[in-house]
Amino acid sequence: MWRTANTRTRLASCSGAMDGGEVAWRFGAAKPELAAASAQIKMRALVARIYGCLDKSDPRPVVPLASGDPTPFPCFRTSPAAEQAVTAAVASGKHNGYPSGTGVAEACSAVATYLSRYLPYELSADDVVLTAGCNHGIEIMMAVLATPGSNVLLPRPGYPLYEARAALSGLEFRHYDLLPEKGWEVDVSGVEALADDNTVAMVIVNPNNPSGAVYSFHHLAEIAETARKLGIMVISDEIYEHFVFGSKPFVPMGVFREIAPVVTLGGISKRWMVPGWKLGWIAMTDPKGVLREKKVKLDMSCFDGIDDDIDFCCKLAKEESVVISPGSGLNMENWLRITFAVDPPLLEDGLERVASFCIRHAKPIMN
Amino acid sequence: MWRTANTRTRLASCSGAMDGGEVAWRFGAAKPELAAASAQIKMRALVARIYGCLDKSDPRPVVPLASGDPTPFPCFRTSPAAEQAVTAAVASGKHNGYPSGTGVAEACSAVATYLSRYLPYELSADDVVLTAGCNHGIEIMMAVLATPGSNVLLPRPGYPLYEARAALSGLEFRHYDLLPEKGWEVDVSGVEALADDNTVAMVIVNPNNPSGAVYSFHHLAEIAETARKLGIMVISDEIYEHFVFGSKPFVPMGVFREIAPVVTLGGISKRWMVPGWKLGWIAMTDPKGVLREKKVKLDMSCFDGIDDDIDFCCKLAKEESVVISPGSGLNMENWLRITFAVDPPLLEDGLERVASFCIRHAKPIMN
Repeated sequence: MWRTANTRTRLASCSGAMDGGEVAWRFGAAKPELAAASAQIKMRALVARIYGCLDKSDPRPVVPLASGDPTPFPCFRTSPAAEQAVTAAVASGKHNGYPSGTGVAEACSAVATYLSRYLPYELSADDVVLTAGCNHGIEIMMAVLATPGSNVLLPRPGYPLYEARAALSGLEFRHYDLLPEKGWEVDVSGVEALADDNTVAMVIVNPNNPSGAVYSFHHLAEIAETARKLGIMVISDEIYEHFVFGSKPFVPMGVFREIAPVVTLGGISKRWMVPGWKLGWIAMTDPKGVLREKKVKLDMSCFDGIDDDIDFCCKLAKEESVVISPGSGLNMENWLRITFAVDPPLLEDGLERVASFCIRHAKPIMN
Repeated sequence: MWRTANTRTRLASCSGAMDGGEVAWRFGAAKPELAAASAQIKMRALVARIYGCLDKSDPRPVVPLASGDPTPFPCFRTSPAAEQAVTAAVASGKHNGYPSGTGVAEACSAVATYLSRYLPYELSADDVVLTAGCNHGIEIMMAVLATPGSNVLLPRPGYPLYEARAALSGLEFRHYDLLPEKGWEVDVSGVEALADDNTVAMVIVNPNNPSGAVYSFHHLAEIAETARKLGIMVISDEIYEHFVFGSKPFVPMGVFREIAPVVTLGGISKRWMVPGWKLGWIAMTDPKGVLREKKVKLDMSCFDGIDDDIDFCCKLAKEESVVISPGSGLNMENWLRITFAVDPPLLEDGLERVASFCIRHAKPIMN
């Protein structure tokens, strides 16, 4: 029931032109590239203008063929099973807390299983990151690709959020063409001409928005080979998966993961007709592990005696079964952070154990 | 039931060290500042390590005083009214569609009313942007403030997501100290010494995490005056609003909006014990309008005849009450994008009207 993608629009105001009157506010620096990108998100403004042109005296019902949202129509109601699942989750009280950073494990697993139905291999929950809608997946991808000097190849025509989010993250974008005379296929030779050593990824949208094209197995293979040749990843926006009319089947880009690393973006918005639920995903189909970083692991050896906050917490856990956060995690060495969002009797028990731990480890008083 | 803030963690892999074997993948450039910031989010790793220290033979229940999530405990169940509201919203089928970019209007309005209870003025729905949790509000603010060369002042100790998101957006951050000997108040003179002409904002967390300090009216006024003197905005993270123990009242920073522009971050996670619901907000308390940009409005005059796609759509709307998106909104001038997520009979009616519109405006065939 919230929306993440375009909150940027109102908040972009914070980097707009400022003049507070008597005070010289310093946060006025505009981002030229952001202003340019904001102009890309003009469809809503255009459609609003067109609505303004309607003749209100026309007795016929307005036919809104500019809307991408089927939900106002009763014939496009989502599955009762989906509604019941949300209701049951809320009623259980078991899903009110923080999930893991990448999404509820069962949900990641369900998405992996779902996507694997159309792949010649099995994705695992670890390959999936849940997002607040597919737009959020776009935001994340543009942000993480935005290393200094890098650029990304985007389709024209295309979905303007890519340009806006790339610009917001300082990621250069270049447009390759979709070819109407070839059924809106990717201009592969154009992609090759556009790429340089700083190109990190190309985005495809399949089934395509706005053309409705569905790319063939052959064409997707050609795209994968091009990505491999250029040494870039393919970000495949498949939010419209299975929106296929006619006999051409939908083929997920992940099928070609052996050729080039593929990051697939998707969500439940379109197919299940719940865009307002904001549930999307990023799936990494990357058998060679080229998208995986080496984890920066803490390399701390065990201590004798209580040396610092971390040591304190470790020993407290070991000896008293009480878990407390060391302040070092908040840049505050030798402090502790005790939260007490637990059942009160358990809290009292725990604090008593902390007290006895402190007494036991206290230096003896010298006379 | 999803989580937006730390999805970055896994996806940051995309900018990590890469080596795909035979192919020289080009997307390997790491972001040094991101790696540095990732190290900030080490609390989870630390706590995981401490859990590893537990003596499994200890028969007593583990007391988890490192957890910031009360929801596993039945005594900390959210209000039945909140659960019923979600269930009713799902059952109605009226909230499955896209809300406005800044959030469902009624919800923005409800947040404005709620926040206004503690302010000497009334916020409106337009002052509020809904976010996917308070973390998302932090992400947005760090992104929009990240103009080239700018910097933001962050508290130490503090919540590490600020550093991580500032780094991801290329926004320099500087730490000011909270003073334990002064009840964890902001070191105001330190803030002044730290700021320069490129400083755009300071972040305060009140009630404070991790110290639990609740700032007095007097201290908040002092902070506001400092911000005014420096020409910067105050971002007030009030996710723990009303988590106040003892007699000191919570005072929202927005009270001082006449002194300096205030952006307030909040959410339902903590107070209503539903962190997994991911509903937060950004409220702009800015009576002088220094945070508002001048809107970049479309400046198109009306046409005679059908000049282009926009003109086509406008006249179609006027004459036929059919609304279609002009391709210009997708960088595809003189194309149309027709969506058909509408009731089929209405769709057929609409397409017939488009056909008659085309016939009526067609140039006569010359013999």
